[in-house]
Amino acid sequence: MPNTKELYALYQQKMQRIADVKNANNVLQWDQETYLPAKGTTFRGQQISTLSEIAHQLFSEESTGDLLHELMSKDDLSKEEKRNVELTLEDYEKNKKYTSRFVRELSEQINKTFYAWTIARQKNSFSLFKDDLEKLVALKKEEAQILGFENHPYDALLNEHEKGTTVAFLDKTFSELLPDLKKLLSKIEASPQVDDAFLKQRFPKQQQWNWGMYLLKELHFDFERGRQDISTHPFSVSFNSNDVRITTRIEEEDFGNMTWSCIHEAGHALYEQGLPEMEYGLPLGEACSYSIHESQSRLWENNIGRSLAFWKLYLPLLQSYFPGQFGNISAEQFYKGINKVSPSLVRTEADEITYHFHVFIRYELEKKLLEGNLQAADIPSYWAEQYKNLLGVNVPDDKQGSLQDVHWSHGSFGYFPTYSLGSFYAAQFFEAAKKDDPTIKNGIETGNLIPLLQWLRSNIHAKGRYFTSEELCRQATGKPLEIRFFTNYLLEKYGSIYIL
Amino acid sequence: MPNTKELYALYQQKMQRIADVKNANNVLQWDQETYLPAKGTTFRGQQISTLSEIAHQLFSEESTGDLLHELMSKDDLSKEEKRNVELTLEDYEKNKKYTSRFVRELSEQINKTFYAWTIARQKNSFSLFKDDLEKLVALKKEEAQILGFENHPYDALLNEHEKGTTVAFLDKTFSELLPDLKKLLSKIEASPQVDDAFLKQRFPKQQQWNWGMYLLKELHFDFERGRQDISTHPFSVSFNSNDVRITTRIEEEDFGNMTWSCIHEAGHALYEQGLPEMEYGLPLGEACSYSIHESQSRLWENNIGRSLAFWKLYLPLLQSYFPGQFGNISAEQFYKGINKVSPSLVRTEADEITYHFHVFIRYELEKKLLEGNLQAADIPSYWAEQYKNLLGVNVPDDKQGSLQDVHWSHGSFGYFPTYSLGSFYAAQFFEAAKKDDPTIKNGIETGNLIPLLQWLRSNIHAKGRYFTSEELCRQATGKPLEIRFFTNYLLEKYGSIYIL
Repeated sequence: MPNTKELYALYQQKMQRIADVKNANNVLQWDQETYLPAKGTTFRGQQISTLSEIAHQLFSEESTGDLLHELMSKDDLSKEEKRNVELTLEDYEKNKKYTSRFVRELSEQINKTFYAWTIARQKNSFSLFKDDLEKLVALKKEEAQILGFENHPYDALLNEHEKGTTVAFLDKTFSELLPDLKKLLSKIEASPQVDDAFLKQRFPKQQQWNWGMYLLKELHFDFERGRQDISTHPFSVSFNSNDVRITTRIEEEDFGNMTWSCIHEAGHALYEQGLPEMEYGLPLGEACSYSIHESQSRLWENNIGRSLAFWKLYLPLLQSYFPGQFGNISAEQFYKGINKVSPSLVRTEADEITYHFHVFIRYELEKKLLEGNLQAADIPSYWAEQYKNLLGVNVPDDKQGSLQDVHWSHGSFGYFPTYSLGSFYAAQFFEAAKKDDPTIKNGIETGNLIPLLQWLRSNIHAKGRYFTSEELCRQATGKPLEIRFFTNYLLEKYGSIYIL
Repeated sequence: MPNTKELYALYQQKMQRIADVKNANNVLQWDQETYLPAKGTTFRGQQISTLSEIAHQLFSEESTGDLLHELMSKDDLSKEEKRNVELTLEDYEKNKKYTSRFVRELSEQINKTFYAWTIARQKNSFSLFKDDLEKLVALKKEEAQILGFENHPYDALLNEHEKGTTVAFLDKTFSELLPDLKKLLSKIEASPQVDDAFLKQRFPKQQQWNWGMYLLKELHFDFERGRQDISTHPFSVSFNSNDVRITTRIEEEDFGNMTWSCIHEAGHALYEQGLPEMEYGLPLGEACSYSIHESQSRLWENNIGRSLAFWKLYLPLLQSYFPGQFGNISAEQFYKGINKVSPSLVRTEADEITYHFHVFIRYELEKKLLEGNLQAADIPSYWAEQYKNLLGVNVPDDKQGSLQDVHWSHGSFGYFPTYSLGSFYAAQFFEAAKKDDPTIKNGIETGNLIPLLQWLRSNIHAKGRYFTSEELCRQATGKPLEIRFFTNYLLEKYGSIYIL
């Protein structure tokens, strides 16, 4: 009979083995987005499916469950060990709810739906997407039943992306936020507009790349434990905390694209590089949640990377990379330009205010789909109506409308709200950090980002998945999530930019 | 009871699944040599071990054997299907001979020996390597017993790299070859020497890279089904015939390094790109053997890439890349310079004649180790003696002596002879090809390498592992391997270069 220590070692070994397979798959996917030759796609898809299946099988083995239950009965585990086992058991039990029939059916429908989406986008026609999407929604409804919920079927799917988040909570949060945002937006629209034309000049690729790499170093992205490459859509991926990779894309006519994607992805990567290496393969070595992950990328991208203090310091350096383009711009002009507010059609290009209307529209829409109060076929008209109502813009076609995001074609329902939650958490964390450590503010003004990073490391990164988002927020800031931190941040920022 | 077609589909599915895991591992290894950040090594080794283990377990399952035996009993398989099953069963039976105790012990000793080798090389001291090497040799002796052999324990290990090759065959082959090589070498040493100083100028990195990429395109390396990157040691690796990758290294002071490594690796890659895609995961989708693989790299590198016809055509193009360095050189001068013969210490830098002395010394040494007629501790003195006797050079230290190759530290005994066999096959294939298709010779002179590639595609690449090297050679050239093709090639080539 093995003792607790031996059992825990077995558990750790098993989980690391599964992590090895999953991370190998991450390497395959990273390679697919960065270096895969054109015709290499044929077998790559199959290789990725095989590894996913193997990881799933290893985790689903009866023996995993037995081991976890046996460990749960032990009283000589450390607090951290206990928590790892508990979280793994939670994952295991959830995993067991799925029949292999359902897993296969869902995975096949996702493949079909993703393919339909790419074609529909090419042809700019939602109607080519609707039938497969409808089938996928039906499966997601079934999934909600499988997972179980108390009040709303959408809760089950939200919970998959953000443990503990509910329709009730999000309804309340958005209803607090949106009136303030609408008021702010009206005031801004009535004020003299800021000029951002300087962002749309020609910025040669190599210089943008060099500037981006310089920025990453300034943000303390650790190049001994990660790298940056080019891909069509920027993303970050981790193979373990010692190998975290990010990508960017460069558009020569648009300065903003690369710069803030670099900072955004660096925020994700700093989190992954800060997860405890010792806990590789175990829950405490994993990120807390989608929203907390997004809080890290947004804190760096917006609260730091779109702040006046940051650009007061870095504009002269930026000017040395692009003297012709930015030579005559002041830090204030630059700051205003990069924060220009303007209701638009595309979520990923939205400013910090209107962004949350984009999310809210998707959230309401998903809720209605899950309730059965909206059919896939009716999405484009619903979309157009909401964009008109909330943002005052006319949706000219499906590509710039309801076909713009990949999420639904992947079967991700309940994902979008975590983007907004990320902004809210970011504002609250940033305030708490500055209060906890008064050197942070001065550090940002003088180019020393270490104090801020250290606060994030010890209050967020080092915790892994120990706490839920909500608990982590309480631990780190002394309060549950309060939307006022975000609203105040916006009011102050845009109040000064638009002189409201 | 599933019918033959269904059983074969099951077999194919199972083998493809294993191939997926192995190829995922190849991606991890490729990444490790090209893009892995410095500290990413920590978990990468573990991830690679895990995938190797999983591939091994999947293949070793009892059910694999049952399926293969059942398929072998069917009489309605096609010739190709039958051969696939037969070869897989052969692999399976061999695999079964190893106990898991032995596999683990060997793998652990290889890890230790590889580590000892890297340290020993750093410190330039064979004595830091000898103990682990001795232990590894003991395990390889055990492996020879496990695998079984008729006449010589080394036969068992040779057979692992080259099915059907024996000490008797290699002894005979080398005893035919070496006297002729010695005679040729003496004549060359007595003749006026050729000048290769022009190869040691400064060649900027980017221009070398561009030139290499241009060459690869000329050789019909398919960039839609592969790519080239930079690594410390050039290698080629395949993830499937639609994704074959090669690497090169660039030394600014040495033109030859990149150019012929490019051509050499392209030869390997053209073979892999030419394997039948339909047979992915099955023996007929795999390369025939180590020596046939090497015949492809060497045919392109030496028979084409070091020929006068090739450089008559490509020197003007090369001059356009490096006008300062090569502007005043004639094709004849260039051809002579790149074929300079000079006994030296390092195998990988040897010319086409002395190369085989390097191999022969290693072959004899491995044979004696397996016989027990040489101890690991005595390798350096044996090495020095042989290099003095056969090549007339004094070995100044271990790094330039018996520590130069990585092979033994990986447990590869019986590998080196395949390098020489590769040259012999290359010469015989090249003769046969030119005889079969008279447009090949003219093609080379006019820059059309397609006829030659087509001959290789249909006579070598398309066959996969259907035949042994020996049978493949008979099929492709009408004769078993005959050393005279290689000797004649050398006599003619060096006869004209050194005016013998």
